[in-house]
Amino acid sequence: MQRVFNFAAGPAALPESVLQSAAAEMLNYGQTGMSVMEMSHRSSDFERIIEEAEADLRQLTNMPDDYEVLFLQGGGSLQFAMIPINLMKNGKADYIHTGSWTKKAIEEARRYGDVKVLASSEDGNFSYIPDCSDLPVREDADYVYICENNTIFGTKYCELPYTKGKPLVADLSSCMLSEPLDISRYGLIFAGAQKNLGPAGVTLVIIRKDLISDELPVFAPTMLSYKTHAKAGSLYNTPPCYNIYMLGKVLRWIGELGGLEAMKVRNLEKARLLYDFLDGSSLFKGTVRKRDRSLMNVTFVTGNADMDKKFSAYAEARGLVNLKGHRSVGGMRASIYNAMPIEGVKALVSCLEDFERENG
Amino acid sequence: MQRVFNFAAGPAALPESVLQSAAAEMLNYGQTGMSVMEMSHRSSDFERIIEEAEADLRQLTNMPDDYEVLFLQGGGSLQFAMIPINLMKNGKADYIHTGSWTKKAIEEARRYGDVKVLASSEDGNFSYIPDCSDLPVREDADYVYICENNTIFGTKYCELPYTKGKPLVADLSSCMLSEPLDISRYGLIFAGAQKNLGPAGVTLVIIRKDLISDELPVFAPTMLSYKTHAKAGSLYNTPPCYNIYMLGKVLRWIGELGGLEAMKVRNLEKARLLYDFLDGSSLFKGTVRKRDRSLMNVTFVTGNADMDKKFSAYAEARGLVNLKGHRSVGGMRASIYNAMPIEGVKALVSCLEDFERENG
Repeated sequence: MQRVFNFAAGPAALPESVLQSAAAEMLNYGQTGMSVMEMSHRSSDFERIIEEAEADLRQLTNMPDDYEVLFLQGGGSLQFAMIPINLMKNGKADYIHTGSWTKKAIEEARRYGDVKVLASSEDGNFSYIPDCSDLPVREDADYVYICENNTIFGTKYCELPYTKGKPLVADLSSCMLSEPLDISRYGLIFAGAQKNLGPAGVTLVIIRKDLISDELPVFAPTMLSYKTHAKAGSLYNTPPCYNIYMLGKVLRWIGELGGLEAMKVRNLEKARLLYDFLDGSSLFKGTVRKRDRSLMNVTFVTGNADMDKKFSAYAEARGLVNLKGHRSVGGMRASIYNAMPIEGVKALVSCLEDFERENG
Repeated sequence: MQRVFNFAAGPAALPESVLQSAAAEMLNYGQTGMSVMEMSHRSSDFERIIEEAEADLRQLTNMPDDYEVLFLQGGGSLQFAMIPINLMKNGKADYIHTGSWTKKAIEEARRYGDVKVLASSEDGNFSYIPDCSDLPVREDADYVYICENNTIFGTKYCELPYTKGKPLVADLSSCMLSEPLDISRYGLIFAGAQKNLGPAGVTLVIIRKDLISDELPVFAPTMLSYKTHAKAGSLYNTPPCYNIYMLGKVLRWIGELGGLEAMKVRNLEKARLLYDFLDGSSLFKGTVRKRDRSLMNVTFVTGNADMDKKFSAYAEARGLVNLKGHRSVGGMRASIYNAMPIEGVKALVSCLEDFERENG
């Protein structure tokens, strides 16, 4: 049985060489005589794993020294609470609403303070990114929040919003490390690992050090304070060690392929293949305004739910799996994260062409 | 290079056959053509993995139907907050203090209400379990909290405390599934996986359904409500999929060895070998009152810090690793969880005998 091309939105495909290396080391990592899963998080061997992961991330992103790297648990959903609990000093935050994930983030933040929605693309079923050139950011807002790439709707900011000096807080779960980024433009970045970074169970947080607060509301659990984890180098309690080890392997793999510039070239080529096909197709069409198209999540429809379903089954028979779109958009979604090889996208385009010829 | 005998307190040794099976499935699980790490948590394949893990756990423990099983993130440290946030309806909880982990649990619970310490063994550096036959449990206490096995100090309750009808909340992180247990005696059980259940990054919670509250304090994050996870079958957001898969493999392994009765026989035999040696030794001695000795974490000293250090190095040279005791007890600690084979304990006893002969 061969491996399939897996277009799942997350958890998603991982580089095959990373999986091979993990399998080879499963019973005996290095000279330790044990699996990384069996290793004390206080051991020098594990400390080296987590330190190398952080060092590789800093190098890949050219991270300025005034940013802290945290490896946390709880996914994006826990960040939706940690961000307002830790960052809302004035009790006010401004959000840009671009889909299901910002909806959840906004609802959670409203438990902790006054949330203003600066702009929204809900009127167009989130098929575009709102104009962010002159947002009504509040003078006393603690931060401005965006979801930079919307996994479900297939949109991405082609430029970051102007926040009038307020810290930009950004959910990069589905685009982190897909191309170069300027960390200094953000106050806080978070990303669940399970799309572009590794297996589910670890959440990467990058936070500007001056935003790490000493004083939190009395109700804030110790585990939900960024300070707790920053002080302990993400080892306040037992971290998800194996997940961090895998994330480290993915970072190393990105570096070996040439870093974020190389990722961008690779991702642009993959996305262009697919969008060019869609733009020329008489059967399939993309669902997102062109300038706001995601490089990672390509959403498209035939306009006929039965035909969409038929296509998904047709593709699956060729080993191209998890192409069904999210129920709120319908149609198809091809998630083509860093780990998806160009061969997978070429196979998908061939499949789309064949299906169109047979059903057009 | 051979595998070592790993006496770490957690993350700790896993069954070798479990690791072998995980390695073999790393690139292609079943007929899926992908790794479990690459699998959508909403896929039927992953749903089967999590459902089987729960079913196996229910069978192994004879779990009554009025208990919910949750697979969460954040470790015991997050439970220290979730328990009072979810269970303190009267704002009062009673704790028994038996070491470092109850200290942390007590401190965290004090953020949310009035905590009374019913009994403590701090006066004896936690080398025993306090008398719990007639505790001054408060009439309006929401629950009584214990740590059933104390990883650091090597103590374990030989019988559960009488709680006068209040729900018993118990941290079983370091003894879960080491022997049969009567779930119906508990209101809530939690256990970080990384000692007896699997890799770090997933926390098992078993909660009596009537204790799952609809109404939480307004500040309670959605992710910290047991209700959130119970309603969604632990799939409210992306769970730590691979960690749950490994936990499921460990549960299956326990079942194959004969279940919890067989584990108890095996663990008693291992612990007796070690304690019998210690009781007869002129160089080494156990640190815990006999009736309160843990079957999982065996703490012992020579009484001489240099000699302790010399022994740890001596053992390590024989492939018996991570025997250094926690800094708050000193000496040595042999954690002999379910996955530690009897051969490992026999090798340790031989090593102790040889060292004693050479240094006695």
